[in-house]
Amino acid sequence: MNLSNSSETSNREPSERNLSKLCVHTITTKPWPIEEAARRFSASGIGGITVWRDALAGRDIRQTGQLLRDQNLSIVSLCRGGFFPHTEAAGRQVAIDDNKRAVDEAFALGAPLIVLVCGADPGQSLSESRKQIQDGIAAVLPHAEAAGVKLAIEPLHPMYADSRSAINTLYQANDMAEALHSPWVGVAVDVYHLWWDPTLEREITRCGKNGNLFAFHICDWKTPTTDFLNDRGLMGEGCINIRQIRGWVEATGFTGFSEVEIFSNRYWSEDQALFLEKIKHGYLHHS
Amino acid sequence: MNLSNSSETSNREPSERNLSKLCVHTITTKPWPIEEAARRFSASGIGGITVWRDALAGRDIRQTGQLLRDQNLSIVSLCRGGFFPHTEAAGRQVAIDDNKRAVDEAFALGAPLIVLVCGADPGQSLSESRKQIQDGIAAVLPHAEAAGVKLAIEPLHPMYADSRSAINTLYQANDMAEALHSPWVGVAVDVYHLWWDPTLEREITRCGKNGNLFAFHICDWKTPTTDFLNDRGLMGEGCINIRQIRGWVEATGFTGFSEVEIFSNRYWSEDQALFLEKIKHGYLHHS
Repeated sequence: MNLSNSSETSNREPSERNLSKLCVHTITTKPWPIEEAARRFSASGIGGITVWRDALAGRDIRQTGQLLRDQNLSIVSLCRGGFFPHTEAAGRQVAIDDNKRAVDEAFALGAPLIVLVCGADPGQSLSESRKQIQDGIAAVLPHAEAAGVKLAIEPLHPMYADSRSAINTLYQANDMAEALHSPWVGVAVDVYHLWWDPTLEREITRCGKNGNLFAFHICDWKTPTTDFLNDRGLMGEGCINIRQIRGWVEATGFTGFSEVEIFSNRYWSEDQALFLEKIKHGYLHHS
Repeated sequence: MNLSNSSETSNREPSERNLSKLCVHTITTKPWPIEEAARRFSASGIGGITVWRDALAGRDIRQTGQLLRDQNLSIVSLCRGGFFPHTEAAGRQVAIDDNKRAVDEAFALGAPLIVLVCGADPGQSLSESRKQIQDGIAAVLPHAEAAGVKLAIEPLHPMYADSRSAINTLYQANDMAEALHSPWVGVAVDVYHLWWDPTLEREITRCGKNGNLFAFHICDWKTPTTDFLNDRGLMGEGCINIRQIRGWVEATGFTGFSEVEIFSNRYWSEDQALFLEKIKHGYLHHS
């Protein structure tokens, strides 16, 4: 793969859009260490990077943040905090402490936002988990505010309601963000989790109107999908009308990044440089 | 497995509930031909059977219905009609014709109800699929009414929105049933599809109040779930509070069957007589 050619190609892209508002999650190209991902993204003209905490393992977080900025990458967010619910109070405290560490990491990295996968415990009711999520965010909030780091509640697809998130619709996320009523708490909209919801346009409008639309994640839903976690599709290979949803998001005044977050055993097993080309094409032509 | 012993055991069940309002779907014990399923269910004191169309293959449907009634089984419903959406009009007409055949089969069997898995086509928008579903049901309705067969819209979990059903919440199913405004069109509530929905209690109340609560299906959601279709859990081995949801259903005045509908590669590979004992136990103690 000739990177400078690849970069020239993207610079000659005929579309009216360029890649300056494209952000790629480190987990999307998981086989690459963050340093290589940053070089490759930057060489492609991609404007942003969202950092997963596992990508920071064994590194000086402050220096890694500087390395990303030196590559002209905007650090869009840190993934992920959350997982607040537990049947035991001690477990909930562990989660709160871990979320405070995530805030510290985001501050060190220079990430303005943490995405929250809020959690759920199958050993208790969804309503109890939902209450614990709100209490957990409230407990972390002063620390986040002091660090200048925002928190985004990400509603997850209902197929994750048992153990990953009891927040499963944008309606719920909006309700919770509004209840917490802080400029430091908002919502992350991910098309994979929300595309099926007949109230999506209305809830995106509400989210934007209340100043809570903090992040926009894209990928696609394949038919068939064969794995609950790691079979997400590239934009254009599934049934999600990403462009329509982006239109709703941008109609609220959102000018942030489109963040490509793809977990895929299939793509992780491919040549990542070729995969990155596909991501750029999918972003330009199918989102 | 000694069936008469098994039957005596269930008759001595200490619970205040008996099995007269338990219905089992033929697909739940798929390895059994319908004749054997009927004998086994009946010998166990189970009151109802829901028949999947594949179980009728190669049989005289009228005679099979009589065979079920001779075993003192109530024929609760026929599964399944639906799959109305297609990008091509010809495909939609094929679906309508097939649904009319399902009505004829239900009439011949003596089943008062057909459950509709409404369908979705990933090649078109969800809103288009939803419109085609409503149009399809409207097209079948006169035939169903003439045959005295009711139609139940079954909202399916959002993880099936791409290709199995564009009706993914009870709110949508209620809306559609109310729009079709016929005593022959109602809704099937399945805990597997709907348990995660924070509006579930309200929508069950609405469904019952409008006379649209036609059927109640139970099983459980396992953590982890490893297959999108065939890894449903037995009542009690997952995180769904089935008893709470049954309470909401019965609070509407519903006095129908709890129908056990479990697709499970694991259980289908087990001894079905032992599995039936587990079903009875799960029904009595975890629903």
